Amino acid sequence: MLDIEKNQNRTTHLYMEVYEYYRKLILDGKMAPGSKMPSLRKCSQELKLSRTTIETAYLQLAADGYIMAKAQSGYYVTEIASHQHINNQPGTHKETYYRYDLASSGVDKESFRFDLWSRYMKSALRQNERMLTYGEPQGEADFRETLSDYIRERRNILCSPDDIVVGASFQSLLQILCPLIHEVYPEFHRVSFPTPSFVHGSTVFGDYGYEICYRNKDCDVVYVSPAHMTKWGEIMPVKRRLELLKYANERHHLVIEDDFENEFVYFQKPTPSLFGLSGGQGVVYIGSFSRLLLPSIRISFMILPPELLNAYKKKAGFYNQTASKAEQIALCQFIRDGHLAAQTRRLKRLYSSKLKQLRRSVRQVFGTGCQIQVGAAGTSLALTLPYEKSGDELKKQASEKSLHLQILKESEKDVTVLMSCSSMPVQDFIPACELLKSVVFD
Amino acid sequence: MLDIEKNQNRTTHLYMEVYEYYRKLILDGKMAPGSKMPSLRKCSQELKLSRTTIETAYLQLAADGYIMAKAQSGYYVTEIASHQHINNQPGTHKETYYRYDLASSGVDKESFRFDLWSRYMKSALRQNERMLTYGEPQGEADFRETLSDYIRERRNILCSPDDIVVGASFQSLLQILCPLIHEVYPEFHRVSFPTPSFVHGSTVFGDYGYEICYRNKDCDVVYVSPAHMTKWGEIMPVKRRLELLKYANERHHLVIEDDFENEFVYFQKPTPSLFGLSGGQGVVYIGSFSRLLLPSIRISFMILPPELLNAYKKKAGFYNQTASKAEQIALCQFIRDGHLAAQTRRLKRLYSSKLKQLRRSVRQVFGTGCQIQVGAAGTSLALTLPYEKSGDELKKQASEKSLHLQILKESEKDVTVLMSCSSMPVQDFIPACELLKSVVFD
Repeated sequence: MLDIEKNQNRTTHLYMEVYEYYRKLILDGKMAPGSKMPSLRKCSQELKLSRTTIETAYLQLAADGYIMAKAQSGYYVTEIASHQHINNQPGTHKETYYRYDLASSGVDKESFRFDLWSRYMKSALRQNERMLTYGEPQGEADFRETLSDYIRERRNILCSPDDIVVGASFQSLLQILCPLIHEVYPEFHRVSFPTPSFVHGSTVFGDYGYEICYRNKDCDVVYVSPAHMTKWGEIMPVKRRLELLKYANERHHLVIEDDFENEFVYFQKPTPSLFGLSGGQGVVYIGSFSRLLLPSIRISFMILPPELLNAYKKKAGFYNQTASKAEQIALCQFIRDGHLAAQTRRLKRLYSSKLKQLRRSVRQVFGTGCQIQVGAAGTSLALTLPYEKSGDELKKQASEKSLHLQILKESEKDVTVLMSCSSMPVQDFIPACELLKSVVFD
Repeated sequence: MLDIEKNQNRTTHLYMEVYEYYRKLILDGKMAPGSKMPSLRKCSQELKLSRTTIETAYLQLAADGYIMAKAQSGYYVTEIASHQHINNQPGTHKETYYRYDLASSGVDKESFRFDLWSRYMKSALRQNERMLTYGEPQGEADFRETLSDYIRERRNILCSPDDIVVGASFQSLLQILCPLIHEVYPEFHRVSFPTPSFVHGSTVFGDYGYEICYRNKDCDVVYVSPAHMTKWGEIMPVKRRLELLKYANERHHLVIEDDFENEFVYFQKPTPSLFGLSGGQGVVYIGSFSRLLLPSIRISFMILPPELLNAYKKKAGFYNQTASKAEQIALCQFIRDGHLAAQTRRLKRLYSSKLKQLRRSVRQVFGTGCQIQVGAAGTSLALTLPYEKSGDELKKQASEKSLHLQILKESEKDVTVLMSCSSMPVQDFIPACELLKSVVFD
């Protein structure tokens, strides 16, 4: 709090102390632009200073541009302070707008039926009685039932609603899973991920003290994403899946199957899940909907094998459910009414066609002087171009032209960038490629 | 249709046949939760039975939790069928329906303006462009700005939107906080909680390897909930708050202030927050809305002091946001339009009056043979009654009469139960007390 010494001998004016106090708060960003200053009356009471003193301080702050008066309302912190504030703070998360975003993992904005989803949400919110209580720690019972039907049909996975744990994100689920693994398998210490780009997963395991390795089948826990082995959609062949399960099973390793983007396996039938292949022995299955619905809807789920499930049951009540109850209820009915299946078909067609189109656009713009990698799944390709400066330099120069890039690899002679087609409209493919070309070759 | 044999020889009561008929329909899912029962008049006409018979059957169905009455509207099917279905599965987390729930932490169903919230959600869902992308890891920028204004006004806490981290629940936030504490203060090992009932918090710290203590001011991390020191709403006096801060500050301990139920401090002015008193030095502030809005809306936030904030900034991108984006957007506008403040005033008045009423009802039913503890905050009181059997036994016997209890303490001679007024309608206070009395003294 402001510590105003009311020493009569002091030469500085009291109002200047009030002025400095608020000026600092505003510059430090502790009072955001647009926020209201305390009323003169309230401020004068709190600081035990006369109203005139406060008013003089406010008038000075207004004169210097830190606050502004609004008629019959009071004083508000101005924008100017915020500009200074943002510039002052290093390392602040900024969300920049790009004209072309090749790195985005958003969804195609034409693909989602907002009105339909909004109807389901409205109907969920009307279930007043249900909204009045905390959700079940494990996830809403009817939703888990629907999920177990859904993954039986789509992924040939047989499990009871009881084996399913719902959470807001796969990270929330890993934050429950890690302590369970520690409890059931205290001898486990090392976790393998497919690539360092699985940073959201490896962060959680790192937080719980696990050692992180990459593509190391001799780890105690093997985290795989069979339909998304790389950013450009390489998938794990069935033969390799069976080998992995056999190897892990013989050594009593635990496999975590993150079934991300399994819906977007284009060039063959959806590949069998590890959980299905193993009969649920020694495999944790993680599924999510962020690529099928809106990324902003936060619902994921995991299926636990028996040992971990038993340990979970004992602790279930100690974890709050993180996923929104309304969204669980809405998604439950959405799935039951067949909309998720329809949305999956629609997106699969759309992304398959967009990915082909993107590939054609890249060929057309870059000719044969580039190398393209496309996997059997996903919404992205990897493009390797000759480039002798650093990847960071390329990213920076592209950013200056409002083009957002993600660098996948770089060497002394070339650089590999990710090109994602999911959120970009088709008509932007050629202009985005041309822009990238101009940055790389100019 | 119901085939009532009006055989005069039958000994079972007619109303039991009506009861069984509807009970079966509900359990088989043929009458969905929320659907309306036929009116007494209509049912009596159709079944050619007296209105009294039907009414008796309905009352029994209601007493057993299959249907519930809504004033001036009629009877509606409850969610009991879906719960029973789950109950049939062994090992499942059970959510049982109770006629009287003295342990519930739900909200008063008359208090929440569902239509209003639904409007804000709809308007959030209409922001199509915004819903297409993942949320900011730290929480939506405009929401954090609104939060910083809100807590400045309500809790006299000065912080920048940049200091705030949003998450689906306080547990999600602790799961980010624990690794940060470990990184910044690797020498910290022991965490103190007010009582063992803070199981959701202590579970997370336990998962990260911290040793848990209770009311131990010499721990490295001191977790306190100043407006909710006990389940019956004891608050931490300002003098004690200042002492705690001084003690922690001298020893460089970290204080975590869980500001749960600070809104429901009745008998004095809202007490100052530790974060505000300390100027944000060495204190992490955690706030939530589950007691003001619907428990099913999953949004909490924390304010980090500088050292932890710096460590967070470096890792922010590695954690997905867990709170629903739509709910963040809706709540942001809900707060800006003054509805949260209004809802807080409404609830404070309501709970204060209900708590007084509950106290009167307890006195009326139990007379002077009981001891009542009421704190200065919250929605519950603690009732101590002479009872020589075990608390578990009391709980079980109450449960058989569809009364849900939480046992706070027990000795050889007496037992202390929690009585929460938040979700129970006032007209149920006396019947619930009578039922408890019959279980204890019969």
